[in-house]
Amino acid sequence: MIQAHVFRDGKELTDVPVEDLSEVRTEPGALVWVDVVSGTVDEVAQMGAEFDIHPVALEDLQPEQQQRPKVEEYPGHVLLVAYAARQDADSHRVELHELDVIAGQNFLLTFHAGRPIDAGSVARRINAHPELAREGSGFLLYVVLDELVDKFFPVLDAIGGQVEDLEESVFSGRRDVQNQIFAIRKDLIAIRRVAGPMRDSMVVLLRRDLGLFSREAQRYLQDVYDHMIRIVESVEDYQDLAAGALDANLTVISNRVNSVARNLTAYAAIFAVITMISGIYGMNFEHMPELAWRFGYGWALGLMVLGAGGLWLYFKRKDWL
Amino acid sequence: MIQAHVFRDGKELTDVPVEDLSEVRTEPGALVWVDVVSGTVDEVAQMGAEFDIHPVALEDLQPEQQQRPKVEEYPGHVLLVAYAARQDADSHRVELHELDVIAGQNFLLTFHAGRPIDAGSVARRINAHPELAREGSGFLLYVVLDELVDKFFPVLDAIGGQVEDLEESVFSGRRDVQNQIFAIRKDLIAIRRVAGPMRDSMVVLLRRDLGLFSREAQRYLQDVYDHMIRIVESVEDYQDLAAGALDANLTVISNRVNSVARNLTAYAAIFAVITMISGIYGMNFEHMPELAWRFGYGWALGLMVLGAGGLWLYFKRKDWL
Amino acid sequence: MIQAHVFRDGKELTDVPVEDLSEVRTEPGALVWVDVVSGTVDEVAQMGAEFDIHPVALEDLQPEQQQRPKVEEYPGHVLLVAYAARQDADSHRVELHELDVIAGQNFLLTFHAGRPIDAGSVARRINAHPELAREGSGFLLYVVLDELVDKFFPVLDAIGGQVEDLEESVFSGRRDVQNQIFAIRKDLIAIRRVAGPMRDSMVVLLRRDLGLFSREAQRYLQDVYDHMIRIVESVEDYQDLAAGALDANLTVISNRVNSVARNLTAYAAIFAVITMISGIYGMNFEHMPELAWRFGYGWALGLMVLGAGGLWLYFKRKDWL
Amino acid sequence: MIQAHVFRDGKELTDVPVEDLSEVRTEPGALVWVDVVSGTVDEVAQMGAEFDIHPVALEDLQPEQQQRPKVEEYPGHVLLVAYAARQDADSHRVELHELDVIAGQNFLLTFHAGRPIDAGSVARRINAHPELAREGSGFLLYVVLDELVDKFFPVLDAIGGQVEDLEESVFSGRRDVQNQIFAIRKDLIAIRRVAGPMRDSMVVLLRRDLGLFSREAQRYLQDVYDHMIRIVESVEDYQDLAAGALDANLTVISNRVNSVARNLTAYAAIFAVITMISGIYGMNFEHMPELAWRFGYGWALGLMVLGAGGLWLYFKRKDWL
Amino acid sequence: MIQAHVFRDGKELTDVPVEDLSEVRTEPGALVWVDVVSGTVDEVAQMGAEFDIHPVALEDLQPEQQQRPKVEEYPGHVLLVAYAARQDADSHRVELHELDVIAGQNFLLTFHAGRPIDAGSVARRINAHPELAREGSGFLLYVVLDELVDKFFPVLDAIGGQVEDLEESVFSGRRDVQNQIFAIRKDLIAIRRVAGPMRDSMVVLLRRDLGLFSREAQRYLQDVYDHMIRIVESVEDYQDLAAGALDANLTVISNRVNSVARNLTAYAAIFAVITMISGIYGMNFEHMPELAWRFGYGWALGLMVLGAGGLWLYFKRKDWL
Repeated sequence: MIQAHVFRDGKELTDVPVEDLSEVRTEPGALVWVDVVSGTVDEVAQMGAEFDIHPVALEDLQPEQQQRPKVEEYPGHVLLVAYAARQDADSHRVELHELDVIAGQNFLLTFHAGRPIDAGSVARRINAHPELAREGSGFLLYVVLDELVDKFFPVLDAIGGQVEDLEESVFSGRRDVQNQIFAIRKDLIAIRRVAGPMRDSMVVLLRRDLGLFSREAQRYLQDVYDHMIRIVESVEDYQDLAAGALDANLTVISNRVNSVARNLTAYAAIFAVITMISGIYGMNFEHMPELAWRFGYGWALGLMVLGAGGLWLYFKRKDWL
Repeated sequence: MIQAHVFRDGKELTDVPVEDLSEVRTEPGALVWVDVVSGTVDEVAQMGAEFDIHPVALEDLQPEQQQRPKVEEYPGHVLLVAYAARQDADSHRVELHELDVIAGQNFLLTFHAGRPIDAGSVARRINAHPELAREGSGFLLYVVLDELVDKFFPVLDAIGGQVEDLEESVFSGRRDVQNQIFAIRKDLIAIRRVAGPMRDSMVVLLRRDLGLFSREAQRYLQDVYDHMIRIVESVEDYQDLAAGALDANLTVISNRVNSVARNLTAYAAIFAVITMISGIYGMNFEHMPELAWRFGYGWALGLMVLGAGGLWLYFKRKDWL
Repeated sequence: MIQAHVFRDGKELTDVPVEDLSEVRTEPGALVWVDVVSGTVDEVAQMGAEFDIHPVALEDLQPEQQQRPKVEEYPGHVLLVAYAARQDADSHRVELHELDVIAGQNFLLTFHAGRPIDAGSVARRINAHPELAREGSGFLLYVVLDELVDKFFPVLDAIGGQVEDLEESVFSGRRDVQNQIFAIRKDLIAIRRVAGPMRDSMVVLLRRDLGLFSREAQRYLQDVYDHMIRIVESVEDYQDLAAGALDANLTVISNRVNSVARNLTAYAAIFAVITMISGIYGMNFEHMPELAWRFGYGWALGLMVLGAGGLWLYFKRKDWL
Repeated sequence: MIQAHVFRDGKELTDVPVEDLSEVRTEPGALVWVDVVSGTVDEVAQMGAEFDIHPVALEDLQPEQQQRPKVEEYPGHVLLVAYAARQDADSHRVELHELDVIAGQNFLLTFHAGRPIDAGSVARRINAHPELAREGSGFLLYVVLDELVDKFFPVLDAIGGQVEDLEESVFSGRRDVQNQIFAIRKDLIAIRRVAGPMRDSMVVLLRRDLGLFSREAQRYLQDVYDHMIRIVESVEDYQDLAAGALDANLTVISNRVNSVARNLTAYAAIFAVITMISGIYGMNFEHMPELAWRFGYGWALGLMVLGAGGLWLYFKRKDWL
Repeated sequence: MIQAHVFRDGKELTDVPVEDLSEVRTEPGALVWVDVVSGTVDEVAQMGAEFDIHPVALEDLQPEQQQRPKVEEYPGHVLLVAYAARQDADSHRVELHELDVIAGQNFLLTFHAGRPIDAGSVARRINAHPELAREGSGFLLYVVLDELVDKFFPVLDAIGGQVEDLEESVFSGRRDVQNQIFAIRKDLIAIRRVAGPMRDSMVVLLRRDLGLFSREAQRYLQDVYDHMIRIVESVEDYQDLAAGALDANLTVISNRVNSVARNLTAYAAIFAVITMISGIYGMNFEHMPELAWRFGYGWALGLMVLGAGGLWLYFKRKDWL
């Protein structure tokens, strides 16, 4: 589905058919944004022809093509591949959604499957700042990327919450901690995989003189870059915290084994004392004076209680029980 | 709350109303410092208008906005986001407090919630060095950052003390070592998270020619940079020491399990010998000569004492008990 | 085996004998590709003489010589050493196959043992794009490297699948997890060993001005570079995931030991209670009232069932069984 | 205590009072070295005034001020903060001693507490090479730093010896290995903490054109830089070796637990067999033919010896004992 | 021992006494190579005077002086410190042998103790390529370094073989794996310690314009650099593989402990069942019907066989035995 938005002097024109775009965009003060949602091969080719996109760039825009985040410079436009993160409502696992952007002097093409950005919200923000839309595609690109990057923060917050929970799970000795840690680490690796290259792409966009964006627009794009750095740093911090939780978990498990082993030692010794005494008075010697005592049985039971109780106290004092 | 301090030729003028600031700051030899403590949205907007602050910078100054430490250059001023560390008196956990600074040629705006710097102390230091205040905002910025950065050291010292304690805790076999290590690591990650970017920001402030600060002021700012490096290095050292304590703790726990297991083996063997002997003399064979002996019972008890004592000695010699 | 392909103005000429190559390649618009499959020492020397290859480069082309991936600049040509990865059908282990390339202004020599590239497919792709073949050896080099690099992806996908399986194996407690992790890590190290230097070689090819390839061809080569980055990043991600699986496995094993030890404690205690009771009623005291009871035996058995059952319930409640 | 040495044309002048230093150092061919040992605040201030030292540098020279190793450039002089390592004779722990140096064109000031350098030895070496002392402060600085850096090597050798011992301790199963590893790691972190920045300072001294030292003197200073690199590399190697020893220790401990557990299993089984047999013949059935046998008792004992011996052999063969 | 080789126009002259070297080397087309094997202090001094070597360089050439690998530029010559690796035939441990080289425009001095290079082989290779010897000392340096660097490969192959063996040792559960891993890691650290700086030295030799070697010679030296990179990469790969083996070993040990613990549980339970039954029928109640049964004994033995056998089957099915 192709949705075109045309702005002139910051005001949105309505009802411009897709066929007229190439004409409209040559007019001074015009800014064209085409949002291709779940575009077919034909639609992508049409846009390529309309906006004179380089064949190598065009190949990367094909649906079903998965690219890593990058910025590539072509004559008259740049290609930007970026990703939004989202947490699946059911599995709570991180999902990544690709967004491809072609940015020219006064046009911007976005290709995605509907998830990474909300086109309506982008349009609203541009209409609210006509003075910036007037400056070319830079501010529009900022709004698109800002929408995209903002999707990372709730995901990171959710992971942050999971990491916090981890700590409690570890020290309260929950059983499935390891699965949780493993899942969190997988999610963090997935995010890092796109966030790192996206941050590096932003550097290229800001540092290299592409001649496409105004200095003012670059100030806004700098903000996106700051957010990307924060995302990458958060991922690293959570990785460190998860590693800490892992270490803690291993120690907690070791401690538990230790404590169980101590318990075992202690109770085994207590039972062994009782068994030992009963074994002794179960011997069949003809001459065992205690056996004939009136209260021999009581004496034996007493010995058992005394031995077991004494040991029990001893172990309690040694903190083995 | 907005608190304005105006200096002319290094001397503080009193009773300059906030409304006159824009006028005063154009006078030669003037230096204006405005300290906005827990500023409202309106107060921030007022300052933005008064000092002609760039809208992107202004957005970062909004209360409730959490930024990562950074330096950003705007026409006529720089934005600096920094943090002070503090240890909560009760929980002993590290807290971080944001300070936003706008530094222009001859004015400095500080935005914070009261914790990161003590405005009174800053004012006293500037009044004590009128010759430096005369040189523009650079020295003032130095004093503010110096106050801020100095807050890190007691926190690091406290963590250093905790790390020292860790060592003792580990080797004396305390139980909650793991929680301590985990808490220390979390604190260190929190500090590193702000200290690293702050150090990098100082490099930008020192290396990039911003045209705002005198060469002399930069020498002072270099001192702040040195402190930031020391803070980052201390964090890394403590992280290494904490990792060492963690390793040591795991080994100590392993050793304890080991020692308990050895004890178990040893005592189990001793009891088993006694039980074995009593089992043998508890058999019901008709022809067991010992059973009829006058001192058979004593003989059996003697065997038990001998067997158990012999084993006990053997284990003692093997250092298993 | 030497197989020569000669293109003029993008069209392939047929039946050009190897002896005429040096003559043909001086004609304007000519592009010569010689594919040496499992070349002998003589064939390599022949090509070296024909295309005026530097003796140091020639040495690296010798069969049986294993080089690390690299790019080396010589007067009039570059030497490129690259590798393709392949998964052995039986052992599922990664194999690496070397490809040496000599690229000049309008000629390309490839030396390999048949595995890394499919010459037929390369020829088909060049014939399909005559306009690019016209531009010199750059596009041809792109096609060759693209074929080569594409061989990495199925291998990485297979490893990705193994890593996914790992997770399940770990948490379902399979025994041979450790061998799998070890094998995966070995494969990843093997791939990284060639992929890292290959990525760095591509940088040299793209950044350094070799004067051999057109700007258009470099755009295509950039694509190969992107793929190499993606391969290296995938390897790193899989290494992280494998490390995570390893940690998880250690914890799972620890947990299992723990659970077995708990079981041991519990059942040992249950049996010990029964043995204790039977031991007590096995003592030979003359005065043990229970022994003379009508239902003494049932009483003892009842005590045993009660004691053992009580303990069993207690352990169940403590989640020890 | 202030000790001044004045050289003219490489020869040391005697009895130059401290008050005349500022005058003497303006004479051509003069070289002044002032060694301030455990200087008071007043003495430092006096030197600052005498040699026109920048107030920021002066602050770093105050006694009780602990600086990190660094080089700072001021008009007419550089400040160098360095450290010497020393091993405490009793505790065998590493101690660090600060040395602050101010180096100008033809003067050198050293501030320390007596430990980092031996002033007598420095003076002797300068008197032995008058031709180099003639070239300005560079060679003098080299001698001072060489003395300082040489103090690291015996400390590193001692640590190297401890690391060697570690290996033996680990494999002979000594108990306090963990404490040793922990102590070594702490020492290495302490040394790395100063050695890394010192190495980086030397780079600044060598690479940046300070205009203070002759090309010849820089060749000598390069030697100090080489030593610093070697120190840093040694620290890293020892850290790796200590990490290896740690891993080895954990495995050795695990193995020991394992071996004890195996022993336990084995002996428990042997005793259990004997107890089982005696238990069987301790049953009170009326009809147990063996009980009435003439050599029933011997038969039972024989069975026990056979069972226990057989198991013992079995375990020996399985290497469990 | 001093051994001089003089080449003129690529041909070796015979019988040139050491005293004439300084004269010979000024003739056009001359190339002088002096090989000092286990040189004394006097011989080193003599060479220093003969070839006008800088005193700082000379100091590094002294016998008994251990240097780290480096390149240092002096007027008219460079100093190169390098190492060869060798595996001791008996202990199979890595040994390192130092080689110091002084390379000037048309002379090369080598200082070593006989092990790092084979002078005969070097001389043979130079005589075989007179055209290259004519170009100055660059090719000679290449041959010397090539001989040296080639000594690393058999050592690395041997370590590679040991790493391969490790894998088998680990999974077949051999006991001394830990010692092997520790020894391999030590060897790898030793090699890395010299190989890393040697690789960096080669970069200096290639990148920095020393004006000593022809462009052609540098192509050859590039080859030595490639080998050094390969050596460093191999060391890193082997370190990773050894780390993998270490992890695997820890898991294998854990698994073994686990399996022994399971075995213990299982057999203890089986014996406990038998003991329990015999305990019950060993009680002395007057009214125990089974005791009077004709086949009571058989019944009890049957119960034991049934109980023990049942448990045995149960554990087998649970894979605990």
